Amino acid sequence: MKRYPHTSRILVALDCIVFGFDGSQLKVLLIKRNFAPEKGKWSLLGGFLDHDEDMNDAGNRILYELTGLKNIYFEELKTFSGVNRDKVERTISVCHFALINIHAHNPDAVKSKNAYWYTLQSLPDLIFDHREMVDLALQKLRYKAALHPIGFELLPPQFTLPQLQKLYEAIYNEKLDRRNFSRKIISTHLLIDTGQKNEGGQTKKAILYALDKHKYQKQFNAFHYFISGFGTSA
Amino acid sequence: MKRYPHTSRILVALDCIVFGFDGSQLKVLLIKRNFAPEKGKWSLLGGFLDHDEDMNDAGNRILYELTGLKNIYFEELKTFSGVNRDKVERTISVCHFALINIHAHNPDAVKSKNAYWYTLQSLPDLIFDHREMVDLALQKLRYKAALHPIGFELLPPQFTLPQLQKLYEAIYNEKLDRRNFSRKIISTHLLIDTGQKNEGGQTKKAILYALDKHKYQKQFNAFHYFISGFGTSA
Repeated sequence: MKRYPHTSRILVALDCIVFGFDGSQLKVLLIKRNFAPEKGKWSLLGGFLDHDEDMNDAGNRILYELTGLKNIYFEELKTFSGVNRDKVERTISVCHFALINIHAHNPDAVKSKNAYWYTLQSLPDLIFDHREMVDLALQKLRYKAALHPIGFELLPPQFTLPQLQKLYEAIYNEKLDRRNFSRKIISTHLLIDTGQKNEGGQTKKAILYALDKHKYQKQFNAFHYFISGFGTSA
Repeated sequence: MKRYPHTSRILVALDCIVFGFDGSQLKVLLIKRNFAPEKGKWSLLGGFLDHDEDMNDAGNRILYELTGLKNIYFEELKTFSGVNRDKVERTISVCHFALINIHAHNPDAVKSKNAYWYTLQSLPDLIFDHREMVDLALQKLRYKAALHPIGFELLPPQFTLPQLQKLYEAIYNEKLDRRNFSRKIISTHLLIDTGQKNEGGQTKKAILYALDKHKYQKQFNAFHYFISGFGTSA
């Protein structure tokens, strides 16, 4: 078989920060590593790219094995390629992040993989450069959630304004003013009033909304205005 | 030497879309490939990741070899990992894009590598998935130039408002209204009036500006407002 004369053939891994939102806190799924090196230490979930799959296949496979979910939102973040990042042998990792509705995943799949949800405030030490990956993913999530409604992937398809506000507060780790938030989010015209109300809550019944994905495609800029009010300049 | 049992060790390449701006048009640097497969065909510039370098080292090396420039602005775009994208042997490519002031590069280095500048409107057929890479890079450049002043990397350190407008027109491939553009860009307060004027032009002397990079760091949101006026919603 003909090959290139270049000889640096290396392992390619895919590591993934899986964000979940439980209604009040943003969490990350971590896995207790069951092979050397660093056996028993905490790690992001990941795996090697197989010979017959591209990165998208690998991401879907790895996420499905761990969460039991298909069609998860995930995107590529950055390649971590430090020469000595893995002591066993050189491995580059194409780091991704995924967003899931925490109540939709399969807890048995997660448990069987020795995986647990950690809040961002209570992350244990992570192997290799995985902590750097989490920090970068969080930064990207904050950036993107300000410009795009990707945060909605973390919510059920129908949600109340207080739920949405709690999500944004968890992502940015800061309290937002309720009236300002409602006014701004409504003014984007990206929410559909489903005509239904939240039944289970302890407080008074709140309107259930859904994201108008079709309209969003056409109206990306509204989110620019949205964030400009309560983002970094506030 | 201990190794992982996984066997899919593969070549990792770095391909780079190098954008340059010549004062009126946005161009891409292409190279005539001098090895098989696809010898004699047009390609992005790129190379394999060596065993002793990370992606950043490889990018700097490849860009320096081709343009004679150091400290070029470049960033990672996406990993192209199709199983059969290279017929010789499996190679994944971590695609990057770079922005340079076209008048600053070393034309001898470029010529000696068999490289040429092509306008976006006159790109020849490209090998593998390189056309897809160019399209994605252009999309990212348009997105980012609206939100961040990365476009300034394509200009000399001091520039006039008409030069800046021509750059934005080239990036978005559309005519912009001069008065609206000036008003909006001035209102971001990100330009420093250098107190000097452009001497060489045929038209009347125009003020030379520079980007206030320090202020930009603090004031990212001004660019959100800036683009919202003439972007996709216009």
